[in-house]
Amino acid sequence: LSNMTYYLGGQLAPRENVHGVLIDVHGLGVLITGDAGIGKTEAALELIQQDKARLVADDRVDIYQEDEERLIGEPNEVLRNMMEIRGVGIIDVQQVYGAVSVRSHATIALNIHLSNGKIGEANFDRLGNDNDTLEILGVKIKRMVVPVTPGRNTASVIDAAAVKFRTANMGIDALKTLEERMSVEMVKNEKIDLENKHD
Amino acid sequence: LSNMTYYLGGQLAPRENVHGVLIDVHGLGVLITGDAGIGKTEAALELIQQDKARLVADDRVDIYQEDEERLIGEPNEVLRNMMEIRGVGIIDVQQVYGAVSVRSHATIALNIHLSNGKIGEANFDRLGNDNDTLEILGVKIKRMVVPVTPGRNTASVIDAAAVKFRTANMGIDALKTLEERMSVEMVKNEKIDLENKHD
Amino acid sequence: LSNMTYYLGGQLAPRENVHGVLIDVHGLGVLITGDAGIGKTEAALELIQQDKARLVADDRVDIYQEDEERLIGEPNEVLRNMMEIRGVGIIDVQQVYGAVSVRSHATIALNIHLSNGKIGEANFDRLGNDNDTLEILGVKIKRMVVPVTPGRNTASVIDAAAVKFRTANMGIDALKTLEERMSVEMVKNEKIDLENKHD
Amino acid sequence: LSNMTYYLGGQLAPRENVHGVLIDVHGLGVLITGDAGIGKTEAALELIQQDKARLVADDRVDIYQEDEERLIGEPNEVLRNMMEIRGVGIIDVQQVYGAVSVRSHATIALNIHLSNGKIGEANFDRLGNDNDTLEILGVKIKRMVVPVTPGRNTASVIDAAAVKFRTANMGIDALKTLEERMSVEMVKNEKIDLENKHD
Amino acid sequence: LSNMTYYLGGQLAPRENVHGVLIDVHGLGVLITGDAGIGKTEAALELIQQDKARLVADDRVDIYQEDEERLIGEPNEVLRNMMEIRGVGIIDVQQVYGAVSVRSHATIALNIHLSNGKIGEANFDRLGNDNDTLEILGVKIKRMVVPVTPGRNTASVIDAAAVKFRTANMGIDALKTLEERMSVEMVKNEKIDLENKHD
Amino acid sequence: LSNMTYYLGGQLAPRENVHGVLIDVHGLGVLITGDAGIGKTEAALELIQQDKARLVADDRVDIYQEDEERLIGEPNEVLRNMMEIRGVGIIDVQQVYGAVSVRSHATIALNIHLSNGKIGEANFDRLGNDNDTLEILGVKIKRMVVPVTPGRNTASVIDAAAVKFRTANMGIDALKTLEERMSVEMVKNEKIDLENKHD
Repeated sequence: LSNMTYYLGGQLAPRENVHGVLIDVHGLGVLITGDAGIGKTEAALELIQQDKARLVADDRVDIYQEDEERLIGEPNEVLRNMMEIRGVGIIDVQQVYGAVSVRSHATIALNIHLSNGKIGEANFDRLGNDNDTLEILGVKIKRMVVPVTPGRNTASVIDAAAVKFRTANMGIDALKTLEERMSVEMVKNEKIDLENKHD
Repeated sequence: LSNMTYYLGGQLAPRENVHGVLIDVHGLGVLITGDAGIGKTEAALELIQQDKARLVADDRVDIYQEDEERLIGEPNEVLRNMMEIRGVGIIDVQQVYGAVSVRSHATIALNIHLSNGKIGEANFDRLGNDNDTLEILGVKIKRMVVPVTPGRNTASVIDAAAVKFRTANMGIDALKTLEERMSVEMVKNEKIDLENKHD
Repeated sequence: LSNMTYYLGGQLAPRENVHGVLIDVHGLGVLITGDAGIGKTEAALELIQQDKARLVADDRVDIYQEDEERLIGEPNEVLRNMMEIRGVGIIDVQQVYGAVSVRSHATIALNIHLSNGKIGEANFDRLGNDNDTLEILGVKIKRMVVPVTPGRNTASVIDAAAVKFRTANMGIDALKTLEERMSVEMVKNEKIDLENKHD
Repeated sequence: LSNMTYYLGGQLAPRENVHGVLIDVHGLGVLITGDAGIGKTEAALELIQQDKARLVADDRVDIYQEDEERLIGEPNEVLRNMMEIRGVGIIDVQQVYGAVSVRSHATIALNIHLSNGKIGEANFDRLGNDNDTLEILGVKIKRMVVPVTPGRNTASVIDAAAVKFRTANMGIDALKTLEERMSVEMVKNEKIDLENKHD
Repeated sequence: LSNMTYYLGGQLAPRENVHGVLIDVHGLGVLITGDAGIGKTEAALELIQQDKARLVADDRVDIYQEDEERLIGEPNEVLRNMMEIRGVGIIDVQQVYGAVSVRSHATIALNIHLSNGKIGEANFDRLGNDNDTLEILGVKIKRMVVPVTPGRNTASVIDAAAVKFRTANMGIDALKTLEERMSVEMVKNEKIDLENKHD
Repeated sequence: LSNMTYYLGGQLAPRENVHGVLIDVHGLGVLITGDAGIGKTEAALELIQQDKARLVADDRVDIYQEDEERLIGEPNEVLRNMMEIRGVGIIDVQQVYGAVSVRSHATIALNIHLSNGKIGEANFDRLGNDNDTLEILGVKIKRMVVPVTPGRNTASVIDAAAVKFRTANMGIDALKTLEERMSVEMVKNEKIDLENKHD
């Protein structure tokens, strides 16, 4: 019963404000975090312009717990649909790019943390088997740390991260495919070795 | 009568050569300026490839005054349709991407000045209420200074700047919407305060 | 006759492994090379997401000689369709973006070498008349050295390089057009000079 | 408690098979119905190719009731990801266009019923104020009847229908805007009439 | 002087209401006309959704004469930004697809008249050398009559018509190219004939 | 040796003129045939505008045999790059949409024959297991007969046909997947039947 009190329409639920940008990418709520000025908003803007994402909240995301496993993010009412682009100013995304470009809220499924690339190559997940998480209101969500460097298009990498995460939920696991192919290859090579020995 | 002499077909009008790139973005003439090597041409190229812009003039823009408030930009005849991409060479945009990708001239409505981000965050307009202008032949046009840093897609920001400028002319003012929402919010909060006092 | 033995299905041909990414851009096999971490894979990813390229091989390209002038590139069987995106992990491009996004092999027509921009402006071809080549298995292929800097979208420049190369094969030569226009202009100016002298 | 029995994972809920195509358009579950051969699948295919929709189920949609107001649609397990295109055959959408092009299930928000245009113009909603519904398992969902005729692109109209429905939920009501403008206009005209009378 | 009176801001100019749809395609004002129900609005909708056109006026276009050669079209104030899609209802294009999808007015450069294909193949221009015109307020504008039949995408043909018209103004004339190639070919063949005779 | 004489550069090879349109769709040569006026050219045009196809030859395709299994198609020299759009006229595709939109020749891999839908539903392949072929110069190529009806976008279906054909060559077989799933399902159901009998 106490749960019911908490989750009633999300109004009475405990809330947390997170500094970041929340977008819906291919139907998946992606929370972009990272240092000020690293380009969180600009990456979201590019995905929105390409019709690959819809804006939920820019700069500051209001988050509450829907149930034990789900976090919902929404904008502060005053900032709804607004984006702040350095050098350009405030943009009303719904007015400029249309209602197809915004959403009122989204379930947060994935955190992409942008990091300048100076912290060393070793710190980035290369295979996709890290178990990094971000904890908000006691709920853990998957976290990927993505390097921001010249020549890397951040929006493009966020798109890839979102689709990888989504397809993983569909049972598509590139790493497993790779391992299976490797063992097939090893068996093949052992056979060749054996045959060579018999010659 | 003397005006007629000046503006006759633009041939006798006073002219100025500006170092920059002139493109038509969503029907709006945008003059991109900035230091050599900052990526003016490459930003224009990306917008052209995405069918979001058409090339008027690369590298050097010939500008004359159409009337008291309007500047027209066009390419030098020899360089018409040409772009110089570092590492790739000269590209004939009309031949490669088609006649849909070029225009013979455009009214200059907006100047976007690209700046490397090192001059400090404070120098970039965050809300969009600066009144920066660029003066050419005595005519002032709106100027936005846009930071170029890793992780920011310059083409995407130019698109946002152009549509923000165009929608402002349509009476869409994000900053005003924001201020209205804020005062509504304040009135609401005062009311809550009052009610709380009465308890 | 000995040639026939070599080229039989490419199986017995001499082979070379090249560190790079091979994509098909507008029907043209483009081999992207450059230092580790410069963003070769990410540039290919962006072109694939935009339906402008299809992946042949990421990270390591197996190359053999089809005939005296043609090199064929293909992936190592284990890595077929796979891409490694730093921070995201391994992606099975065929599963995620579909079979339309991959190819089993491609004739290598062009090498684009990505270089950080620090080596000086002078080192980049500005007009497109350099005759730089990359030699693999005794076959020379055209090479363009493209700078990677903030504010330049690498994927966009690769697209321009590929279409420039392809249109050159169709007889479209921007540099020649430019030179022709210049001589026309010069003749015109000489005529004006002459007329002025007669006045 | 009896509700819990019904809705437990949707496995024990009452189910209904509907002949139609279910796609997710801009995050909205749209059930396309209509006579055999009218082009339901082909319309869905076009939206999927344009990255505007994702396939949930082709030809036959399994529907169960999630709660009193929500219907969930999913494919029959055997037909998952499959589409039948007349003249072409069966296509595995996930394999061909990628995992980004499919979804496992969707809440059904809107029914678009395709109708050949012969039944007379009068039968189609012109203003968007009809209250047509389709009832499945006792739940009513909004229904729009869309004419199929030469020169009308069905996929394009479905996109417009979906975004109109979605923006209506955001409080955007074109009909209301129209009525407001009309009364403003009428007041203006009355004023002019009055002034004319005084002359 | 009397002209000045007429053209002052278009307010006092003679006006005409035309039944049709006015869109800006690649920067060119295209007036779509044709019988009721033939799909004028739907063709415009599809081009708008593809970011190839912007809506000026749907159903009814207010036209006035800017100068002796130019007609300006704009919407009736009440209907500004609105489109009526049969089966769907009224759509506020600016709200739904964004301010980038609308324009306040456009110079009318081309009339595309949609016709059902039953009037016989002979009636359609095949080479593009017809001199059909539409006269409005004494100004003649170029007119193309485009057949609407199953299997022809009207929006796609309108796009081609607009770019053909625009490139003709740039001096690109496909018919002339064709004729030149034909005479080259004829000369070649005559030469071959002559040589054959000498044999 | 006699073969060598035939195939030398295609110049001396036997040739055939086919009435149809040849395009390269996703790297695959597709020959579109069908009755005059059915919309072959318009379907190709739409795919070219969407950057999904490149034009090889419109209206008339010159075909010669490269080797025993391969047919090469190219345009008649006079008609190179030209398309004839009814109502619009001749378009020079390379000039209008750019060199990225044309190819000089293509290997013909697939014939798509457009047919008006009146010949009865039964005549169209529904599963994709027909073995229809078109024979040109003694070489058989796969043939799909695609219905043209209102509400079906021909270009979209051609795209699906081409990708289905291409993925079949990659070993992706939707029909086989379907059959495998069905037998799994049958085994499952038999098991349930057995268990029910034991109850």
